[in-house]
Amino acid sequence: MIAIARGEISASLVIKNAQIINVFTKDIDYGDLAIEDGLIIGIGKYKGEVELDYSGYYLAPGFIDGHVHIESSMLTPNNYALAVMPKGTTSVIADCHEIANVCGNDGIDFMLKAAKSAPLDVFMMIPSCVPSTDFETSGATLLADDIKGYLDEENVIGLGEMMDYQGVLVGKKEVLDKIETFQNFRIDGHAPELKDQDLNAYVLAGVGTDHECSEPEELIQKVKRGMYVHLREGSQTKNVMDLLPGLNPSYYDRILLCSDDLHPNDIAKVGHIDHNINMLIKAGIRPISAISMATINIANCYNLPRRGAIAPGYIADFVLFKDLQDIDVLDVYKSGELVVHNKVPKFIPKEIAYQKVMNTVKLDLNNVDLSFTLKTNKVNIITLIKNNIITKKLVQKIILKNKQFFPEDNPDLLKLCVLERHKYTGNIGKGIVKGYGLKNAAIAMTISHDSHNLICLGDNDQDMLIAIKKIKEIGGGIVLVSKGEILDFLALEVGGLMSLEKQEYVIDRLTNLDERIRELGVNKDIEDPFMQLAFLSLAVVPDLKVTDKGLFDVHKFSIIPLEAGDEE
Amino acid sequence: MIAIARGEISASLVIKNAQIINVFTKDIDYGDLAIEDGLIIGIGKYKGEVELDYSGYYLAPGFIDGHVHIESSMLTPNNYALAVMPKGTTSVIADCHEIANVCGNDGIDFMLKAAKSAPLDVFMMIPSCVPSTDFETSGATLLADDIKGYLDEENVIGLGEMMDYQGVLVGKKEVLDKIETFQNFRIDGHAPELKDQDLNAYVLAGVGTDHECSEPEELIQKVKRGMYVHLREGSQTKNVMDLLPGLNPSYYDRILLCSDDLHPNDIAKVGHIDHNINMLIKAGIRPISAISMATINIANCYNLPRRGAIAPGYIADFVLFKDLQDIDVLDVYKSGELVVHNKVPKFIPKEIAYQKVMNTVKLDLNNVDLSFTLKTNKVNIITLIKNNIITKKLVQKIILKNKQFFPEDNPDLLKLCVLERHKYTGNIGKGIVKGYGLKNAAIAMTISHDSHNLICLGDNDQDMLIAIKKIKEIGGGIVLVSKGEILDFLALEVGGLMSLEKQEYVIDRLTNLDERIRELGVNKDIEDPFMQLAFLSLAVVPDLKVTDKGLFDVHKFSIIPLEAGDEE
Repeated sequence: MIAIARGEISASLVIKNAQIINVFTKDIDYGDLAIEDGLIIGIGKYKGEVELDYSGYYLAPGFIDGHVHIESSMLTPNNYALAVMPKGTTSVIADCHEIANVCGNDGIDFMLKAAKSAPLDVFMMIPSCVPSTDFETSGATLLADDIKGYLDEENVIGLGEMMDYQGVLVGKKEVLDKIETFQNFRIDGHAPELKDQDLNAYVLAGVGTDHECSEPEELIQKVKRGMYVHLREGSQTKNVMDLLPGLNPSYYDRILLCSDDLHPNDIAKVGHIDHNINMLIKAGIRPISAISMATINIANCYNLPRRGAIAPGYIADFVLFKDLQDIDVLDVYKSGELVVHNKVPKFIPKEIAYQKVMNTVKLDLNNVDLSFTLKTNKVNIITLIKNNIITKKLVQKIILKNKQFFPEDNPDLLKLCVLERHKYTGNIGKGIVKGYGLKNAAIAMTISHDSHNLICLGDNDQDMLIAIKKIKEIGGGIVLVSKGEILDFLALEVGGLMSLEKQEYVIDRLTNLDERIRELGVNKDIEDPFMQLAFLSLAVVPDLKVTDKGLFDVHKFSIIPLEAGDEE
Repeated sequence: MIAIARGEISASLVIKNAQIINVFTKDIDYGDLAIEDGLIIGIGKYKGEVELDYSGYYLAPGFIDGHVHIESSMLTPNNYALAVMPKGTTSVIADCHEIANVCGNDGIDFMLKAAKSAPLDVFMMIPSCVPSTDFETSGATLLADDIKGYLDEENVIGLGEMMDYQGVLVGKKEVLDKIETFQNFRIDGHAPELKDQDLNAYVLAGVGTDHECSEPEELIQKVKRGMYVHLREGSQTKNVMDLLPGLNPSYYDRILLCSDDLHPNDIAKVGHIDHNINMLIKAGIRPISAISMATINIANCYNLPRRGAIAPGYIADFVLFKDLQDIDVLDVYKSGELVVHNKVPKFIPKEIAYQKVMNTVKLDLNNVDLSFTLKTNKVNIITLIKNNIITKKLVQKIILKNKQFFPEDNPDLLKLCVLERHKYTGNIGKGIVKGYGLKNAAIAMTISHDSHNLICLGDNDQDMLIAIKKIKEIGGGIVLVSKGEILDFLALEVGGLMSLEKQEYVIDRLTNLDERIRELGVNKDIEDPFMQLAFLSLAVVPDLKVTDKGLFDVHKFSIIPLEAGDEE
């Protein structure tokens, strides 16, 4: 290979006439790009056994997603690669937090193995918070001892987002044990609005990144303390434009791009990390600076060897496109192989071994009581807020019949049930939801953050029960029922989170489910009715949520009764 | 410590009212700096058991020298720390190439151990080129197997400068073995003027830095290929001002500062890395950018944990000074301890164990023949060039007496002898030097790059022999003799390279030696007569040099006779 670099022997592949983006100097290189054995040999004068003319194209390092939960795509890693590689993504820093909450070590093992089924490089951050809180039943509890073995695994590069920042701040032993175990690795943060001394403490403990900034000043404070900060643009949470005023070329090198959570239709229609890059370019950031945030900066932060640049010895991961002001990736090379040509994937992922993460709906159907029996009619109600996963707690009197709550007697109030589905505990948490708007219908899903129990919303027990039964039958997924009839469903057989089907099928089902549910009276303000539901169990975001253990008051950080006491 | 960071408990030490330089955002932080157990806890509102008011001061991370041969200071590491820490240096990336060439593994072991005698952090790059060439006898030959054991040693961070870039380019096995052994570590480069395809090959092999750039375009080319480039300012080689036009804020993060070789008097009078920083500031680079090149950039390049910035969890290495436009360090803290106050060191280094690197002049005095017997009078002459370690090859007829060369018959020609002093081989290499100018005198030294054999220059055998004998008696060093009398000498007992005395003593001797030699007819163009001599054996810099194996033609890369053939 040294002889090839010196031009003494022809390279296997030489790319000619592309304008090559140099992320080190932030300018353009001109020359032949020689590639051999998956590596970039150099830029200069080179002859190749194959020579490809890319006149009129820009060539950039393959894009890297700095933080993503692949599970949010509802695709298994092999199909995920088919979805994102045409967008120019050649590597992702993944955190398999979702499936770990369902399947524990089996889930992590599955993701690590399945990730190797496609040319996409998946670097794994091992989930740090399984379960997310003590107020829910997850499929597993992972302590430091349960995850330390992953340190020796190929492509494991750190500890996933430390959402339990309160645990860090109060010095909770289980939390500090995990941090200590991973102390020589990158530890991702998750600390919305944390600042001043508490932020010092969090960083001191060893957390090095954050992707939860929502305001410019927050970004600046975190960069000042030595954190790398991700500009996130996902399906559920979008921060790029909010953070833009906080950017300054002096510390562009500390800024990374990520998607966090992206649904399959958004990947198809909006894009992946190419979308974050294009947003920044349109906002006036120099294109090569924006590209650097999705390439070399991430490689530096996560210590990814030989990735993130076009230089000798680097892995030949690169993308080609024609317009530097509005990047639309046409061809993608991974390890020197053309994997996407004219936006079409040219690889066929391998089959994955998913057996250990199937059949995860462990629920006794004979034991499902959906009735709401109340002592008083003054209750705590979960009120939805437009475009937000935060809810408002509302205390209101409702109409009861024989001490029972029926939505039919209470306009715009729905039953929300979270059924534990990991361990046959029979737990059902219950809440009353306002502002969703569903008539003669029920939805049930096994995506419900973060423990992914079975969440079911409806205005009548019959439809709810049919939906729940169907979920069990299909091994998890999303089911929509109205007037006793199953309108449509998407099976998510893998952990109840991911489909075995490809992106197109999943999008078709989701599109149809969305169209059907819109006919059932759903509030038009709700952008994504299913994802809105999936976050109604997320016990770390205020005000009121429901876990399998009951109605959860995030401010009080405790389970509360449905009935509002007199003190309310 | 988390509780301290949160302000629940007082910190041991709090620095108040300093303007704190933030190398991440490249601006100034205001607040109390809390320190505990050697670490920075945070900047904010803090109370301390001890609170120190530094109003009017700037506070910056401790400076790091990105590449240095400590041996060039002629001081052992403990005394070196006393010399450089008052200049603001708290860490160095050292390459113990010199003593390794004399003492092999014992030399490396000595430096690693001796480095721990003082608060200065010495991170070691293990020498890659011992010996430097095959055309000289060094004290050791270190192959990959001889150095791989160091990978597990604390503070060993990589492979030292790969000077044998030709070896890399031709794929020499011993060279590639070493690179492979250190492939997951930083590998320093040394590749003056290497460019284009050969540079691609060198970088492809795994070399990641270069400190030999002498022209702006060379710097840019190396940065483009992903190298970190050092701006070097040493006693012998000074590149900062030459490289300045090649700098651009887009890639300041790839630029490091280093000294490479600094003599003790230059450290005292000119400074250490603070000098490089001040040069850049005077040239118009923003002070915090210049400081970043000597702190966080080096920490990033060499993967130094918790160093190079003032942020939570970082080691509390910092310096204090009053003028940001002309940095003159007053106080230095290392791991939270005040080690320099008002420029005066406050620490006493520990004794070092130097026994294994003493008595390194292994030379049989009965076997020294300094005569120059020649077959013809047409000879190859080493001509000195002003302020340069390059020499010119000159072919000239000289006057012989009984086929013998005597300087007394040949104005401005001197005898140069390099006596092997590691293994009693009896090797003496001989050359004729023009342009040095010495009358009735001889110098002998055991600093002679890179094998550090005994080098002796003189115009008469009697003085030369006296000097050589004195060198043996004092165990190495520098000796000046005139008319049978020893005018002065500096003993460098440690490997023949370093004194056991402190900086002040060494400077005194060197100053006196310089004054004495100036009285002996030395060419006024020669800035440092002793160092000029030390480089006359460096077989990797053109044109003609002398090693213990004979006269060496760097262009032919072979030993040649003193007599110039007819083809010359």
